[in-house]
Amino acid sequence: MPNQKSSHIPRATIQRLATYVQTLEILARDGVEVISSNPLADACGVNGSQIRKDLAYFGEFGVRGVGYNVKALIMAITRSLGVDREWKMALVGVGNLGRAILNHAEFRARGFNIVGIFDCDPFKIGEVMHGMEVCCTDDLKNCASRLGIEIGIITTPPERAQRAANNIIDAGINAILCFAPARIRVPANVHVEYVDFFHHLYALAFNKIQDES
Amino acid sequence: MPNQKSSHIPRATIQRLATYVQTLEILARDGVEVISSNPLADACGVNGSQIRKDLAYFGEFGVRGVGYNVKALIMAITRSLGVDREWKMALVGVGNLGRAILNHAEFRARGFNIVGIFDCDPFKIGEVMHGMEVCCTDDLKNCASRLGIEIGIITTPPERAQRAANNIIDAGINAILCFAPARIRVPANVHVEYVDFFHHLYALAFNKIQDES
Repeated sequence: MPNQKSSHIPRATIQRLATYVQTLEILARDGVEVISSNPLADACGVNGSQIRKDLAYFGEFGVRGVGYNVKALIMAITRSLGVDREWKMALVGVGNLGRAILNHAEFRARGFNIVGIFDCDPFKIGEVMHGMEVCCTDDLKNCASRLGIEIGIITTPPERAQRAANNIIDAGINAILCFAPARIRVPANVHVEYVDFFHHLYALAFNKIQDES
Repeated sequence: MPNQKSSHIPRATIQRLATYVQTLEILARDGVEVISSNPLADACGVNGSQIRKDLAYFGEFGVRGVGYNVKALIMAITRSLGVDREWKMALVGVGNLGRAILNHAEFRARGFNIVGIFDCDPFKIGEVMHGMEVCCTDDLKNCASRLGIEIGIITTPPERAQRAANNIIDAGINAILCFAPARIRVPANVHVEYVDFFHHLYALAFNKIQDES
């Protein structure tokens, strides 16, 4: 359960906190037990005052002159963000990208588990991937609550993204991670996050032509 | 070549422009020739005044009372962003995600072509994927300029991301799209974009625990 303070964490801070957790986890794997804010900031690509401000949301985890306890800080951040527990997810669209996400070790390592996989292609339905049978997307409604699914992932081609979203919403799921390069329409109570490769590629390309001009 | 006006496009606008292009391309595929700003805004998930403001960067593409010509608007936006031409890319790390990106039809459809694939795993080097032989990452330096590579994509595990970045930078490539859940250190002249699945999953999870509390 989040504490009073964390309930006001702004969106940009959440993104930086996710970055801090990633960096802290790599440090923990490398056997680092304590780190002070400046080297941590450096490893995360932010400045020291930014990281100290962000971590102030979690009370006093730093010890002056010593630094942050790496494991305690990971636990404090992940607990406040609600990511210290398992989140069960459904994946809709088992093409190349869907399969890659299904096999992505980092998802499971962070407690984001895909527990149901769906497709509308009759040639894919019934196929077993990663120990799960591909089900018809229309069946999502019947098994979402039984499987405890809270997040739906869309990895369909763009033209099928809206249909996938409709199936997810009909199943009572109100959080969607959309990898399809398309915008979807959802009711106000449904939260959609877009992972948009082209936002980033466009930014890189535009930056390069600016540099060259 | 970008026009004078477009050289000042802010980052947030570039991201929205990428979204508009996606939506316009779906409309074009569906045979829509002309669209007015309000339905276009609706399809893109922004408000009408926002889209009119953003499109003002491109001069007068709208005709009052008629709307925007879909194909002309796609061409104007992509030309100004520098994405109306081919961009050649190297992919470093041919695991599940790397292979999915290699096979992602939308990349090629938008002119972002992967022309070289690299890995440091001796068991993968020499394997042929998508008509290309996997090369040793150390060889990137020798073939980047011959292949005309301008963007490097990192799809390694997090612990190998920095090494991949170093190879890319050594090869004279100054634009990186990083899919590895790790931060990399680069010189000031190198532009890195992170595609971070966990930023989005953390935001979804945090949003849900806020709703429930």
